[in-house]
Amino acid sequence: MYIIVVYDVSVERVNRVKKFLRQHLHWVQNSVFEGEVTLAEFERIKAGIGELIDGDEDSVVIYKLRSMPKREVMGVEKNPIEDII
Amino acid sequence: MYIIVVYDVSVERVNRVKKFLRQHLHWVQNSVFEGEVTLAEFERIKAGIGELIDGDEDSVVIYKLRSMPKREVMGVEKNPIEDII
Repeated sequence: MYIIVVYDVSVERVNRVKKFLRQHLHWVQNSVFEGEVTLAEFERIKAGIGELIDGDEDSVVIYKLRSMPKREVMGVEKNPIEDII
Repeated sequence: MYIIVVYDVSVERVNRVKKFLRQHLHWVQNSVFEGEVTLAEFERIKAGIGELIDGDEDSVVIYKLRSMPKREVMGVEKNPIEDII
C-alpha cells in the first residue's frame, strides 16, 4: 500500500515525529511524508506515531492508497520523489 | 477527480493561498486541503495557485486521485471530512 502522512503536531513534539517518519518514509515537504509500505510497516508507523503525539492536541492524517499517486508540483520541488524511485 | 493539495508557502503569501483554496476545497489540517473537482475546477485551482505563489520559494504538491481515499486520523480531527459528505 502507498501512504501519504500529513501532520499538525505541536512544536515540542514535531521534531521527534519528523525524525521517526524519516526512518520509514520519503519526506515530501513541510509536514508531509509518503511512501510504499507493507501492512506490517503501516502498523508499525501508526504505533510509532501514537507513542509520539499528544492525542488531545496533535493531528495526523494518513491517506491510504493502492499505489503512488499522480502529482503536479508547482514552484520548488523540495525533495523530488524521483530520487527514491 | 479527487485532489489533495499540500503547500509550503512563505508567511507573506500563505494567507492568500489558504483563502483561495478554501473557496474551492475542504480544509483538512495545517496546510492541507482536499476535495472532488472537475477538470475545469482543477485547472482553475492550478492557475489560481500559480498566481499567488512565488515559484522560486514556495512549493505546492497536488496529488491527483480517482476518488476520495481511505484515511486514518490519529489524535484530533481538525475538520472532519464527514462534515462535507
